Amino acid sequence: MKFLSFRFEDKLLYGVKVKREEAAWNIVRIHKELMPNENVPATLVEGIQSGMELQETVRKCIRAAEESGQVSRFKVNFTDLIWEAPVPRTPKNVICIGKNYRDHVLEVGSEKEIPSDLVVFTKASTSITGDNSIIPSYEELTGELDYEGELAVVIGKKGKNIPKQMAYDYVFGYTIINDVTARDLQSRHRQFYLGKSLDQTCPMGPYLVSKDEIPSPDQLSIVTKVNDEIRQDGNTRDMIFPIEEIISTLSKGMTLEPGDVIATGTPAGVGKGFTPPKYLKQGDQVKVSIQGIGTLTNEIGE
Amino acid sequence: MKFLSFRFEDKLLYGVKVKREEAAWNIVRIHKELMPNENVPATLVEGIQSGMELQETVRKCIRAAEESGQVSRFKVNFTDLIWEAPVPRTPKNVICIGKNYRDHVLEVGSEKEIPSDLVVFTKASTSITGDNSIIPSYEELTGELDYEGELAVVIGKKGKNIPKQMAYDYVFGYTIINDVTARDLQSRHRQFYLGKSLDQTCPMGPYLVSKDEIPSPDQLSIVTKVNDEIRQDGNTRDMIFPIEEIISTLSKGMTLEPGDVIATGTPAGVGKGFTPPKYLKQGDQVKVSIQGIGTLTNEIGE
Repeated sequence: MKFLSFRFEDKLLYGVKVKREEAAWNIVRIHKELMPNENVPATLVEGIQSGMELQETVRKCIRAAEESGQVSRFKVNFTDLIWEAPVPRTPKNVICIGKNYRDHVLEVGSEKEIPSDLVVFTKASTSITGDNSIIPSYEELTGELDYEGELAVVIGKKGKNIPKQMAYDYVFGYTIINDVTARDLQSRHRQFYLGKSLDQTCPMGPYLVSKDEIPSPDQLSIVTKVNDEIRQDGNTRDMIFPIEEIISTLSKGMTLEPGDVIATGTPAGVGKGFTPPKYLKQGDQVKVSIQGIGTLTNEIGE
Repeated sequence: MKFLSFRFEDKLLYGVKVKREEAAWNIVRIHKELMPNENVPATLVEGIQSGMELQETVRKCIRAAEESGQVSRFKVNFTDLIWEAPVPRTPKNVICIGKNYRDHVLEVGSEKEIPSDLVVFTKASTSITGDNSIIPSYEELTGELDYEGELAVVIGKKGKNIPKQMAYDYVFGYTIINDVTARDLQSRHRQFYLGKSLDQTCPMGPYLVSKDEIPSPDQLSIVTKVNDEIRQDGNTRDMIFPIEEIISTLSKGMTLEPGDVIATGTPAGVGKGFTPPKYLKQGDQVKVSIQGIGTLTNEIGE
């Protein structure tokens, strides 16, 4: 299922994409009007916590809507909604894996920087924004705003010390993140946090796709375009540390919780990797597409 | 006022220290039983958001308790409560300033590592724990568990792009953090996050002291003892980047929110700084004392 969070009539809602239509089932409204006594989560994060049961509940909601004789009342056209990140606020900061694609490490550094252990940093949970939103250019703060298209894993179950073989049990699904980075702040402040945490520099979405629809998350093409020029053209099979190892290593001593989001690193082709660098500027449009998930589109504003 | 969060009769509550007694006013119970129609916050974080008004509200609560003729009903002795971190869950990860005391930078590195810009990393919000709690020794994960006593600033008001001169307007108060660190994980994973984020490695407390009681946060002595041996004996006047500069720099493009906690760095004397290093081991007791706030005590468990 393709889940999404959205704003409609000034309320934060969630739903699932209607098959073959550019519209969402408005699960919150179906719950309220057609099945008020059923136990339906109020937000997508709450739903994630209920795991695979969420899909059963949502299917029941859709059936109720289809049988209501008022189908259109329970759908929202994509043209009428404001996209929110599927997880608008993560329980801890967004966890990010750095230097996880060999060719990306080489384009911004040297062979000796290829990591033998996971490199982990975070983006402030306040930096999260949705599909179609405007990313400020922050011209007064940075001259080196850059994109990084990444596959993100959304955790569905609380866990600690998770063995590799059990890792996918803790995954709810997948989404796309553009790990927008102020390169000059990233290096000036040594640790990556500040250069990665400006407001609105963590676009996420458009969908959170449940894991049953993505049987091979380790074989997905990732393409990032800036103004329709292909910049990144990678595949998740080239990760140095695959998803099961990431989850296992992170959870050694640190509890992962439902709704935690892990961005798994970016392939080669970031702006800094070009000579001269191709940083983002006002008016640029960035699109990150991942096979089976969709395309995350954002524009650089003032 | 000295605020605290605590667990009593299996409920997460908050209150303020009773003057000259080792006990807390149970604000939640006073609200429920004596003034149910008044607008009293349900948690300390909610209270922080109401800013200085919280102190007015709490004073009203205490007066009501004193006049109730059942004073003892509304107090909880410290021997009967379980301490929680004053902010048991921060809105974003705990923000930490690295290398903010010259002598500490020199004890673990060289002159060229003295930063000219703020070094910022985070501790997972899942790592927070309270005074008197047990910190696991994590013997299977690390052989280099270390302590770092730090003054922490708690934000009271939402803000962005805060000028230095306005910084203290956004401060609610101060607490103590022991930034417990697995040094080997910290260096093996390059970025600091993982080595700083094991569960229970962010003890915080015992009190959150409102800023009116700490007129000079830039002149406080910090002392860390391990098994009553003095290890760190510093003063916040030696910070390379003072509090107003930290708040101003962090808020450039990144929104700070009520309840956000900023650990301002540690003075010289960490375990890694000794030859040979003095790392923590099972059974050790660590005490961090800061003038005007109190003493944060934790023991290293299995």
